[in-house]
Amino acid sequence: VRGGAEETTTGLLRLRRLESEGKLRCPVIAVNESRTERTFNDRYGTGQSALDGILRATNLLLAGRTLVLIGYGATGKGIAQRARGAGAHVVVCEVDPLRALEARMDGYEVMPARDAAERGDLFVTVTGSRAVLRKEHFERMKDGAVLANAGHFDVEIDLGELAELSAGVRQVLPLVEQYALADGRRLNLLAQGRVVNLAAGEGHPAAVMDMSFANLALAVEHLTLHGDELEHRVIDVPKRLDEEIARLKLESLGVRIDELTADQLEYLSSWGAG
Amino acid sequence: VRGGAEETTTGLLRLRRLESEGKLRCPVIAVNESRTERTFNDRYGTGQSALDGILRATNLLLAGRTLVLIGYGATGKGIAQRARGAGAHVVVCEVDPLRALEARMDGYEVMPARDAAERGDLFVTVTGSRAVLRKEHFERMKDGAVLANAGHFDVEIDLGELAELSAGVRQVLPLVEQYALADGRRLNLLAQGRVVNLAAGEGHPAAVMDMSFANLALAVEHLTLHGDELEHRVIDVPKRLDEEIARLKLESLGVRIDELTADQLEYLSSWGAG
Amino acid sequence: VRGGAEETTTGLLRLRRLESEGKLRCPVIAVNESRTERTFNDRYGTGQSALDGILRATNLLLAGRTLVLIGYGATGKGIAQRARGAGAHVVVCEVDPLRALEARMDGYEVMPARDAAERGDLFVTVTGSRAVLRKEHFERMKDGAVLANAGHFDVEIDLGELAELSAGVRQVLPLVEQYALADGRRLNLLAQGRVVNLAAGEGHPAAVMDMSFANLALAVEHLTLHGDELEHRVIDVPKRLDEEIARLKLESLGVRIDELTADQLEYLSSWGAG
Amino acid sequence: VRGGAEETTTGLLRLRRLESEGKLRCPVIAVNESRTERTFNDRYGTGQSALDGILRATNLLLAGRTLVLIGYGATGKGIAQRARGAGAHVVVCEVDPLRALEARMDGYEVMPARDAAERGDLFVTVTGSRAVLRKEHFERMKDGAVLANAGHFDVEIDLGELAELSAGVRQVLPLVEQYALADGRRLNLLAQGRVVNLAAGEGHPAAVMDMSFANLALAVEHLTLHGDELEHRVIDVPKRLDEEIARLKLESLGVRIDELTADQLEYLSSWGAG
Repeated sequence: VRGGAEETTTGLLRLRRLESEGKLRCPVIAVNESRTERTFNDRYGTGQSALDGILRATNLLLAGRTLVLIGYGATGKGIAQRARGAGAHVVVCEVDPLRALEARMDGYEVMPARDAAERGDLFVTVTGSRAVLRKEHFERMKDGAVLANAGHFDVEIDLGELAELSAGVRQVLPLVEQYALADGRRLNLLAQGRVVNLAAGEGHPAAVMDMSFANLALAVEHLTLHGDELEHRVIDVPKRLDEEIARLKLESLGVRIDELTADQLEYLSSWGAG
Repeated sequence: VRGGAEETTTGLLRLRRLESEGKLRCPVIAVNESRTERTFNDRYGTGQSALDGILRATNLLLAGRTLVLIGYGATGKGIAQRARGAGAHVVVCEVDPLRALEARMDGYEVMPARDAAERGDLFVTVTGSRAVLRKEHFERMKDGAVLANAGHFDVEIDLGELAELSAGVRQVLPLVEQYALADGRRLNLLAQGRVVNLAAGEGHPAAVMDMSFANLALAVEHLTLHGDELEHRVIDVPKRLDEEIARLKLESLGVRIDELTADQLEYLSSWGAG
Repeated sequence: VRGGAEETTTGLLRLRRLESEGKLRCPVIAVNESRTERTFNDRYGTGQSALDGILRATNLLLAGRTLVLIGYGATGKGIAQRARGAGAHVVVCEVDPLRALEARMDGYEVMPARDAAERGDLFVTVTGSRAVLRKEHFERMKDGAVLANAGHFDVEIDLGELAELSAGVRQVLPLVEQYALADGRRLNLLAQGRVVNLAAGEGHPAAVMDMSFANLALAVEHLTLHGDELEHRVIDVPKRLDEEIARLKLESLGVRIDELTADQLEYLSSWGAG
Repeated sequence: VRGGAEETTTGLLRLRRLESEGKLRCPVIAVNESRTERTFNDRYGTGQSALDGILRATNLLLAGRTLVLIGYGATGKGIAQRARGAGAHVVVCEVDPLRALEARMDGYEVMPARDAAERGDLFVTVTGSRAVLRKEHFERMKDGAVLANAGHFDVEIDLGELAELSAGVRQVLPLVEQYALADGRRLNLLAQGRVVNLAAGEGHPAAVMDMSFANLALAVEHLTLHGDELEHRVIDVPKRLDEEIARLKLESLGVRIDELTADQLEYLSSWGAG
């Protein structure tokens, strides 16, 4: 074993724990965190496929609806922009003040989830955290609200608390379970709270996965050529590889770009004139 | 028979022909042309469901792709806005200079279809006309281009000319036929050129159909109450009904609006102060 | 006098009154209502110049602010889209249920002006009516709210009621008067409630006025050639002229478009195949 | 002297040179690079004020025009989104493949500046580099093209090469110089190529500057309290301060946000359940 290339968030978490305990026995490239993997995957890939999964499961009209988005990271931004383009009114909930301010400056309403609970027709969680929709939110939601998770496993919507509040559940569509609350309201859960772009859609389009696979392939090549020189740590994808993948992707899209002139290279390295 | 209410474009066409020949024997309300039916149905309904159908058929990533839209009527506008929201670069082709100018002023590129043919990754026809994509366009398209119709029957893409240019056809996905052109390029036709939101999606969401049905129901009530006073012609949906449906729809969305004050009513009718 | 061409809403109003009283002595072409004049003028011209005037008067950052728009006609739509593009959260108030529904389906919040009064950082009136912002709204506004009119004369904001509520007024910027309410809140009125794109900006860009002048010129030519055949009424700009102007405008922008083929013309006139 | 807080890019450049030569005699906080300073300043501040400056200088209609944007960093993104919202067709030029791909995935056309030169009605440079518009571009531009710089000093547009190509220059508006090229074309230079939001507008709105000043103030407080513990280096603004500023800004906008629950904090630190 000369090294590894890790594609998932959870995998990296564990590898870093190994590293911190001095138990990592080879270099591992954090493919999951390259820019061609992470930004593009999350913003453009999940941004599209999460809404696609929701439409396949429900055939909801987004225009005129209030979509409450819990989480404004890369995926959240992608979903917000697409939902707005489709005519939804988007409300964002966040715990991070920098992200909350960015959402607000991008023109979205921002408010605590308890307040948003009363407003939403459709709720989408994308936080990577747990129980971001829970009893205190279910209690305030409108009859007929739809709940989807596009984040992480099936823990973002607290299914236990949802079940506790409910008098019964019935399958109203293949991927929609309707929870009948004791007070008569009905909440519609998509894909059992599992990640909706995988569970109700077809996951990422090929045009996103190609960049993931390119990251893996080039990481393996890098390990083969330079593995001996690398420390036994979790290491970033070299920026050169990230750029190479972007360059290949642009080529495949038929897009050509500029190059710095010799003058500009000199100017940017010296900053003499500025 | 006290009267009729017609929901389709084709139906109205024939009824108007009957009327012009003096053969219409009862009043017919042109439900298809009310604003709650037409604008909302086309812009918001087909605007969403056409792209939804295309994604279900292909799982294409819209971001980064060039979508060539043939036709910038109500449906075209709805598709253009949603495709842009999803990260596509939208190019519009039109024969009507007023619509073409509107598309351009809305920020889209506008050009003749022959020029656009070389640029598009995805082509969507929404004209109500025939053969808007034909031999001269197929000959210029890129290898791998995708062709979808969201307009009218299966005549907007000239299937005869497409077949003539092709050495063979194979089914590459349930709703995608790949035409292998003699020169090696491949063109992917969705749903045999049939209306893609019906053939590959689930058609209009319920939140659009409800307004259609309300139009029909109120038209029938109107005929029942006032049928005797109406001429035997194709007549518009009374504006009052259109407004009533919009009012009910807003109510169902939980949206309240303002009313004119007595002062404003007087001002608007007299225009004395202006 | 062979006829007239009227460019303003108010002029047409009076001419139509003359016509209804049988006192119109020549044909008058309603230049104000042609599509190249009205839609483009209002949506693109005032849509841009109203916000431009507001920025010149205040240097406000639109991102993160709530803009309450009273009126969702052509001008309102233009302002809403541009404000959203600039990062504002847009709330629409309307009296017309069809327009209110359209605003909602375009993704904006819609609510009565009394509710919106508490939410807005910036208020823009575009109704053509009077006193759409008045005592009941001023009483609910936040300290520091900014009031601008982009509609009609200086009557949309009720200046009398604003003065009555105020303990004093001072000029805080050349085009901003600050009204100090008795309870300590301050409301900032732009350009004395006059139309803000004219009073604080430079009015329409030349690229909008050129279409207005073309309408006038072609209307006069039409009167010269065909004035004798026209009734003494207010008449629409012939669609042919409207299209000719759009065609010339496209040409000046370097945009070429398609033409219908002979086959398509036949298909569209017969509808035989559909 | 206990330390410094540096607000500008150029200042940081020189301080880092000092540091690399071992000559920095106190800690300096890189205020310019905090997120509340950089992202918000560039994307929302310059994003708005650059276009504002261009409109004040020219009264151009953005709708229907092709805006060529050289540079897709934070400022470029802000300008692109606002220009699109105003109805412009935006073409992006970049040397960085990752940024170029992002621009393309955001739906903009991407091409080399030589190709874009023939397409643009309005050119805006935001690169921080020099001579990004130069002879080879001027030679291809359309008659009447407008040139503005929103990046860095007055070196992004090569004024020397522009003058060399020109037979004469005349002032056509207070902030617009028209260069008459030998072949008859005219190019319009705004504000002598100086940063257009400062030279033709009023610079950043107060709602952006407040965050800059907060950064400076809190940096100084941090130096006062902890200056003795800090190394004599250029150091980042502590994330805690950045978040505090975002929190205060949200408060000033009347926006409240969520907090992590105890359960979530534990989940996120352990990742045990995932």
